[in-house]
Amino acid sequence: MTARMEPRLSLITLGVADPARSRVFYEALGFSAAFENADVVFIPLGGLVLSLFRSSEMDADMKRQNAGPGAVALAYNTRAEDEVDPILAAAVKAGGTLLKPGKRAEWGGYSGYFADPDGHAWEIAFNPAWSIDAEGRVSMNG
Amino acid sequence: MTARMEPRLSLITLGVADPARSRVFYEALGFSAAFENADVVFIPLGGLVLSLFRSSEMDADMKRQNAGPGAVALAYNTRAEDEVDPILAAAVKAGGTLLKPGKRAEWGGYSGYFADPDGHAWEIAFNPAWSIDAEGRVSMNG
Repeated sequence: MTARMEPRLSLITLGVADPARSRVFYEALGFSAAFENADVVFIPLGGLVLSLFRSSEMDADMKRQNAGPGAVALAYNTRAEDEVDPILAAAVKAGGTLLKPGKRAEWGGYSGYFADPDGHAWEIAFNPAWSIDAEGRVSMNG
Repeated sequence: MTARMEPRLSLITLGVADPARSRVFYEALGFSAAFENADVVFIPLGGLVLSLFRSSEMDADMKRQNAGPGAVALAYNTRAEDEVDPILAAAVKAGGTLLKPGKRAEWGGYSGYFADPDGHAWEIAFNPAWSIDAEGRVSMNG
């Protein structure tokens, strides 16, 4: 268990009005989605994932009201579940704001959110279905 | 010259009120800055860079008014200068909005910005001072 973050990033989530429309836009530029459901599209970007998330669902997940389609969240996936709470606590101690305490997630993991001093949101998450290699790159397949 | 983007990302820029304060915050969490001046701090994150950019300067660079300290921009560095304009054109053709046409940058490169259909800003940049490896990871030292 550690409260230190490794220098790496796991996801970038963009709030969008219509994930299917956004997928078409990004695929026109050369990216390829690896997963899609009604609310989210995942696009692997070489060791991190670009997530296009329906903004109403994103608001609910982040516990923010009306962040809107322009909202952005960065996510750091931990290597173990018991790293999530200490990192959230360290962020608050360093001057951040707790947006959502760590809790069990619908998708089978455990996650919470903090905001940095300017309000930028970070999700700290443990996702047992994704792997993280030695260099810190995430992969969506266990 | 190509208008296709490889599936990779080069920078994530967070607008901040005070880059020095933000550096202290992120270093308390475990990250380490590799470069700092009065307006920007660069934190390498394993092949991409987290940039903490004074929001007034960021507004000017993106040609957006009052995006504020909560603004975020993603950046994709091209391998050649002549890729920048075709990618900006492809983004507009796909339904994006041109924020800033490609132009010579103070830092010695060439860059422009588009916004995706929800307003998320992307900088498309050629930076001759940074290298990009075969896997698409950027490095700040040539």
